[in-house]
Amino acid sequence: MKAYDIVIIGGGPAGLTTALSARNTYPDKSILLIRKEKIALIPCGIPYIFHTLEKIEDDILSDVPLQKNNVDMLIDEVESVNGKDLNLKNSDKIRFEKLVLATGSYPFKPPISGIEKDGVAFIKKDIEYLRNLNKKIEKAKNVSIVGGGYIGVEIAEELTKAGKNVVLVEKLPSVLPLAMDKEFCDMVQEVIEENSVKVILNKAVKEIKGNDKVESILIEDGTSYPSDVVIVAVGYRPNLALAKKLGLKIEEKYGIVVDDYMRTSDKDVYAVGDCAAQRSCFSGDYSEIMLASSAMAQGRLAGSNLFKIKVMKETPGILGTFATKIGKVSFGVSGLTEAQAKSLGIEYIVGINETFDRHPGKLPDASNIYMKLIYSKLCHTLLGAQVRGGDSVGELINMFSVMIQNRMTEMEIDTMQIGTHPMLTPSPIAYPVINATVDAILKEYRMKYNS
Amino acid sequence: MKAYDIVIIGGGPAGLTTALSARNTYPDKSILLIRKEKIALIPCGIPYIFHTLEKIEDDILSDVPLQKNNVDMLIDEVESVNGKDLNLKNSDKIRFEKLVLATGSYPFKPPISGIEKDGVAFIKKDIEYLRNLNKKIEKAKNVSIVGGGYIGVEIAEELTKAGKNVVLVEKLPSVLPLAMDKEFCDMVQEVIEENSVKVILNKAVKEIKGNDKVESILIEDGTSYPSDVVIVAVGYRPNLALAKKLGLKIEEKYGIVVDDYMRTSDKDVYAVGDCAAQRSCFSGDYSEIMLASSAMAQGRLAGSNLFKIKVMKETPGILGTFATKIGKVSFGVSGLTEAQAKSLGIEYIVGINETFDRHPGKLPDASNIYMKLIYSKLCHTLLGAQVRGGDSVGELINMFSVMIQNRMTEMEIDTMQIGTHPMLTPSPIAYPVINATVDAILKEYRMKYNS
Repeated sequence: MKAYDIVIIGGGPAGLTTALSARNTYPDKSILLIRKEKIALIPCGIPYIFHTLEKIEDDILSDVPLQKNNVDMLIDEVESVNGKDLNLKNSDKIRFEKLVLATGSYPFKPPISGIEKDGVAFIKKDIEYLRNLNKKIEKAKNVSIVGGGYIGVEIAEELTKAGKNVVLVEKLPSVLPLAMDKEFCDMVQEVIEENSVKVILNKAVKEIKGNDKVESILIEDGTSYPSDVVIVAVGYRPNLALAKKLGLKIEEKYGIVVDDYMRTSDKDVYAVGDCAAQRSCFSGDYSEIMLASSAMAQGRLAGSNLFKIKVMKETPGILGTFATKIGKVSFGVSGLTEAQAKSLGIEYIVGINETFDRHPGKLPDASNIYMKLIYSKLCHTLLGAQVRGGDSVGELINMFSVMIQNRMTEMEIDTMQIGTHPMLTPSPIAYPVINATVDAILKEYRMKYNS
Repeated sequence: MKAYDIVIIGGGPAGLTTALSARNTYPDKSILLIRKEKIALIPCGIPYIFHTLEKIEDDILSDVPLQKNNVDMLIDEVESVNGKDLNLKNSDKIRFEKLVLATGSYPFKPPISGIEKDGVAFIKKDIEYLRNLNKKIEKAKNVSIVGGGYIGVEIAEELTKAGKNVVLVEKLPSVLPLAMDKEFCDMVQEVIEENSVKVILNKAVKEIKGNDKVESILIEDGTSYPSDVVIVAVGYRPNLALAKKLGLKIEEKYGIVVDDYMRTSDKDVYAVGDCAAQRSCFSGDYSEIMLASSAMAQGRLAGSNLFKIKVMKETPGILGTFATKIGKVSFGVSGLTEAQAKSLGIEYIVGINETFDRHPGKLPDASNIYMKLIYSKLCHTLLGAQVRGGDSVGELINMFSVMIQNRMTEMEIDTMQIGTHPMLTPSPIAYPVINATVDAILKEYRMKYNS
């Protein structure tokens, strides 16, 4: 039997980051990473294997950083656990001193009649599975997508680029219903409809029809759409099988219960990423948000703190910072939307601004940029930001993430020093982060001075 | 004689922002903006009138926001001041209650023999002057540029795109010598040389030769370059003529002396933008940095506080956040460079990282991104960032600006939650802001644990 100081189960972003962080912090410890997939994928790149990337192999998460950092690797699965010994499917027992679960999540399978038929697919982080799916899609003419979240919307867009007829069905009243406020959801919908995605809202899929192989989807209003492939993307659930074997405390829907340092109910066992239960930094409630970027932050924290608390936890619960690009339009969200603030009972003020992301706006490549900020009415801190614009939205939303995490107030942001350049950003005079903030401040002036 | 509650002199970004901020804060006050130019330009857009913009009129700073906000405008010049009365060149006297000087800056004219010749030009913020210059450049074959700062480099790049033979002369050892560390300066130089700019470093221009009209420039090493036009861009000096008439306290090289709320030695007179003396937020010393984005922050602060201090000053002195795009490569700087930290005697640690700004890196449009962070060795706060990359650098550098202004530490940044997307940002695993920070932390680990 081999023994390691640190054993990490799972080779996605959370596991990989934990391993690297542990190596950085504990140069002398032995580290093993066990994963079941021969090849690991970059999860957020998966929607792009269907058209933009030349081949699925372009989306591989490289093992080189592990090799370079003297982290051993084993392709295997844990079958059972006995104290500190892991019994593996294909190899000898492994003993650990500290164990990190980074077992990720699996696609939720909704109770739709016909969902077991051939031609119904999920977005699993499994290269063989996706390679097969891609082959089926290549042959398909009509593809239906069930679920209008980020993955559904991104894949819908990719598949129209690949020349497919795409129908997207979302049972809530808008695409990305949980991610953005309605007006932004409508903008996303507009872009994908312009690119020929047929969007069906507010209706559930009643049945997936066909003999053995899928032939069509039947919507609850009685309409049906021919479908050679049906992709179901209605969210993910944490992989808890191993946590259950270990007898760890779990929240079935949200994941393994962890403390601020990602320690589970067993203090020698840590959990990071999608399999760990996360809490919202605004409400303290469990959150269903699963993001590689949050998994990274957890992996770095856990990896550093396996033997001693070296790195104090500096951030509250999960903030939720997303970006996506649909067609040529980018969208970003950080923190609370207006709908979320309302449902949490938070008193807020909204600031809005619209301008160009180059200056003068007549420069080539200039895109319109529109943003909406949510400020706490009495604390004056920034709580959330939503942006539609060009490619710069990807990093702009991270600036908002930094502002929210620093609890910056309207006035701090109003007097902030920013950099601008004609070819890269809006004009200093029109800088929308400032001007949306000024819009919020003006509303307060009007309330206070009644003018 | 007309009287106004608020009179602002100067119609550039600082004056415009002050006017709008004053209007927002004081809805009932009468406001007049006096400027000498019939048409105001967007200053940072000026380099692009030579090629990228179709016509100089595309770079106009619109008067619409002033009109919409009930700010009166007068095209005129102040000839003399008598108490609170301004005597104007072409119109009746104006009386003010509060006066704001936003008189800007003028190009420094170095003592080079022949600088008065026809064909020698400066980058003035004057549409007529620039229109004439553009006509001369259109006819020119060879253009020499004296000064390798941002303006010199940006115009050099534009003129090669317009098919000119361009020579750029900088007397210090690199282009952008005051703005970035040497290795970044070298990258900028590489890009402009690839685009056929002839770069001459470490040598001064001795003489501008020609009969009446310029014909060539003579470098101190004896070489000479034929030149139909010579553009001199060796920095700006504050416009202090009116401040002197008002008897305000000034620092000849740096500008009008102001307090934290942009009030001059006369408490009813404010100064904002390039004409105000600015202090570095790191050293407290006067700074030669003149930026529209800092002018904006000052304008917003001054405009809000003309009658009462409504908005407390939230930021320290000038931070200095810049971005530029040279060819297809973008560069950004915020805060201290390593050279500046060294010269201030600050003890620092450097973190470096290089990756792609899309993930996987095989996605179309992916650019290499390289960054260098400067952290305080004992306080652990971020002091400066330099980045080379694609267009995303424009907003990425603002994220750094927010981090520095919030005095974020390595560990706060290491555990920060960021958003990523394949089409818009680096991978979460390779996110360079985190990984450059980890690089700095690792250096500390090694010092502390001697491993």
